[in-house]
Amino acid sequence: MTRTEPARGMRDFLPEDVRRREYVIGIVKRVYERYGYEPLETPAAENLETLMGKYGDEGNQLIFKILMRGEHEASGKADLALRYDLTVPLARVIAHHQSKLPRLFKRYQIQPVWRADRPARGRFREFYQCDVDSMGSTSPVVEAELCAAVAEVLLELGFNDFKIRVNHRQLLKSILSVCGIPEPQHSTALVAVDKLDKIGRDGVMAELAERGIGSESAAGLLELIARPQDMGPDGIALDDTGLQAWKNLSSILLLTNGTAAEGHIEPDFTLARGLSYYTGAIMEINVPDLAGSLGGGGRYDNLVGMFLDQSVPACGFSLGLERILVVMGERGMFPPSLATTPADVMVAVFDAADMPHAMRVAGALRAAGLRVLVYPDADKIGKQIKYADSRGIPFVAILGSDEIANGTLTVKHLAAKTQNIYEQGSAGAAIVKELKQRG
Amino acid sequence: MTRTEPARGMRDFLPEDVRRREYVIGIVKRVYERYGYEPLETPAAENLETLMGKYGDEGNQLIFKILMRGEHEASGKADLALRYDLTVPLARVIAHHQSKLPRLFKRYQIQPVWRADRPARGRFREFYQCDVDSMGSTSPVVEAELCAAVAEVLLELGFNDFKIRVNHRQLLKSILSVCGIPEPQHSTALVAVDKLDKIGRDGVMAELAERGIGSESAAGLLELIARPQDMGPDGIALDDTGLQAWKNLSSILLLTNGTAAEGHIEPDFTLARGLSYYTGAIMEINVPDLAGSLGGGGRYDNLVGMFLDQSVPACGFSLGLERILVVMGERGMFPPSLATTPADVMVAVFDAADMPHAMRVAGALRAAGLRVLVYPDADKIGKQIKYADSRGIPFVAILGSDEIANGTLTVKHLAAKTQNIYEQGSAGAAIVKELKQRG
Repeated sequence: MTRTEPARGMRDFLPEDVRRREYVIGIVKRVYERYGYEPLETPAAENLETLMGKYGDEGNQLIFKILMRGEHEASGKADLALRYDLTVPLARVIAHHQSKLPRLFKRYQIQPVWRADRPARGRFREFYQCDVDSMGSTSPVVEAELCAAVAEVLLELGFNDFKIRVNHRQLLKSILSVCGIPEPQHSTALVAVDKLDKIGRDGVMAELAERGIGSESAAGLLELIARPQDMGPDGIALDDTGLQAWKNLSSILLLTNGTAAEGHIEPDFTLARGLSYYTGAIMEINVPDLAGSLGGGGRYDNLVGMFLDQSVPACGFSLGLERILVVMGERGMFPPSLATTPADVMVAVFDAADMPHAMRVAGALRAAGLRVLVYPDADKIGKQIKYADSRGIPFVAILGSDEIANGTLTVKHLAAKTQNIYEQGSAGAAIVKELKQRG
Repeated sequence: MTRTEPARGMRDFLPEDVRRREYVIGIVKRVYERYGYEPLETPAAENLETLMGKYGDEGNQLIFKILMRGEHEASGKADLALRYDLTVPLARVIAHHQSKLPRLFKRYQIQPVWRADRPARGRFREFYQCDVDSMGSTSPVVEAELCAAVAEVLLELGFNDFKIRVNHRQLLKSILSVCGIPEPQHSTALVAVDKLDKIGRDGVMAELAERGIGSESAAGLLELIARPQDMGPDGIALDDTGLQAWKNLSSILLLTNGTAAEGHIEPDFTLARGLSYYTGAIMEINVPDLAGSLGGGGRYDNLVGMFLDQSVPACGFSLGLERILVVMGERGMFPPSLATTPADVMVAVFDAADMPHAMRVAGALRAAGLRVLVYPDADKIGKQIKYADSRGIPFVAILGSDEIANGTLTVKHLAAKTQNIYEQGSAGAAIVKELKQRG
């Protein structure tokens, strides 16, 4: 007997799981379409070289590799790899289909990615990302619309206590310079700063020291980024790049006034974001009852250039579907109307010979807009009703010899313990009505 | 520079592709839900042992294998494999989640599968299957409902010239016995018979000879299966198993009367189906202008038993999404209303300083139900309109200094070369109305 577990860190989604996932995905899609983002899908597997070297050393280790097929299998060599995120495949698509794609391209993509992480609570080896990106413009309208769209998604899902924190990579780097940290150490310093909300000020001080940053510079840095009110032309003496970045950030914030992001978005100069490919604004979304983030993103104007002899401005946001589902589940945010039963009505017969009649009745009920299950066997009627009850199916439509002779249908509402006899032709409409009344 | 092709035999789906795929998938889901089938999803990767040995020798060769991670990577050994079909994962799920799943379980599953086949026209290494299966009952209602549901899907997609051919494995085996072909040769003989519509009568005769079937038996077999009218209790002398199978098939056909399958379903005793796991009725769907089938299925009462110390009756149907899309594309069956543009309206400004205003106007238009793109840069207005036109966006809403002073919006319909000036507050409703009128 073969064992029956799904692969380690991966999950089977039973009907109730799928319905919750599709409810969230449906809202994400609807909102992104409203903002003019278009759907894109890429293959689960990419050529190995497309992914290698794009995610840093740690990322390389976590990529699932696929063995060459055919006569090369025995070599143990891999030529393909499973998609690790949705950003690198997007950059590849922009480069490959350049002639078919518009100069300004706004796309969303909702697909699984795979990482060979050690599985833990809430951390899986297969999980969905909901990405939204704008390619082709450096305008702050791009960032503002991304924040507005993401905020609108969260509001429509029923979140109202989220914060979108924004910062700017060039502003951070300018502050690092002001504090006397030289350019080659910027990346390593930012990795430490990124941990501020996880390990606290003392933890970051220690980590900055480990990474070779002098204690005076480190202390200055942590003091400056904690003073948002002192940023800008009249505050801390930033270099030109820093001032430009500050202005860009101010524009983004101004543009979100009056959008769904208003009241949720705020600058946070301690935000660093781990990924090395960000070049401008960076964003992250948090809710109070979740340790990590619900999503994040930023501007990455140089990534497409790794696939194309030309740079293409780009900026995007990624929402973590699994984390959204966890919080929504814990908070009870799924609408009660979300189907948890396989059907609205189950059709039951006493005698297998009446099955052809049951099929026709089921067809008429479906034509009225109902979801209908035909109980396939002529089991005892009590057993059939018990089955419907155990599945939460609200109505059972019974077809016995009387009903067939009279062209009627006896319809039981299981929870209310009531029953009505309808003409077969009008039963569908009557059940639809009753279903609406009972909520 | 990294190369930019998708992996061999796999495809990027640009927005128009995704919209067509989702249109079809939406109809498939809606119809299956109406019949009480529930959604299920399984991981892209399965433990290697879950898949090996389930698809015959040829299948084993085509399974994509995933290298072990961590310290085992260098061994070149695989422990996972990409999903090869949706039936074996279903059987695993039934066994693994037995306590959570109902005794009668009807599920649909629409996910990609991967096969390392040699890519060819219309044959891909990543492709979607739309599967629908009923577990837990041996009633012919199961087969009849599957055929009805699949027929309803095809009718709703706009197909009306499809045929669902049905046969029965036990009936075929009974006919083989009648023709003097011994049981151990049944499987090999059926593989040859399955090619009848591809290689014709002479081709099958030759292949049967190659497979060691005597020419008299072979000729008798091909004669018998071509005489549907002679099957049944008063016709060809079948054994008891064969007669039972004939009755089962007759019941299935009777039960589809009055359903969406009526007029499309017909017995075809030449149908064999390649897969070895079928145990009862087998079905296949064809349309005149496609060489292969649009889908197929059958009863497989022994597969779950490979994962569970207990047999679970099962029957299912698989539709090939890629083939459906090919035929629908060639026949022009997609509705003209299917969105091919990124937005209904594009908002344009003359001056970057007016962008905050543009964001608010876009928000109001979106609230009216429109899909809205904000052109992100203050390019020359002619360039902006040209962009909207190139993307097929029907309306451009222009916000200049006059409009901002007056609280109005100048809305151009590009194709009609007309323009209207609306109050900003009522522009959304007006555009929605115009959009409906113009279709």
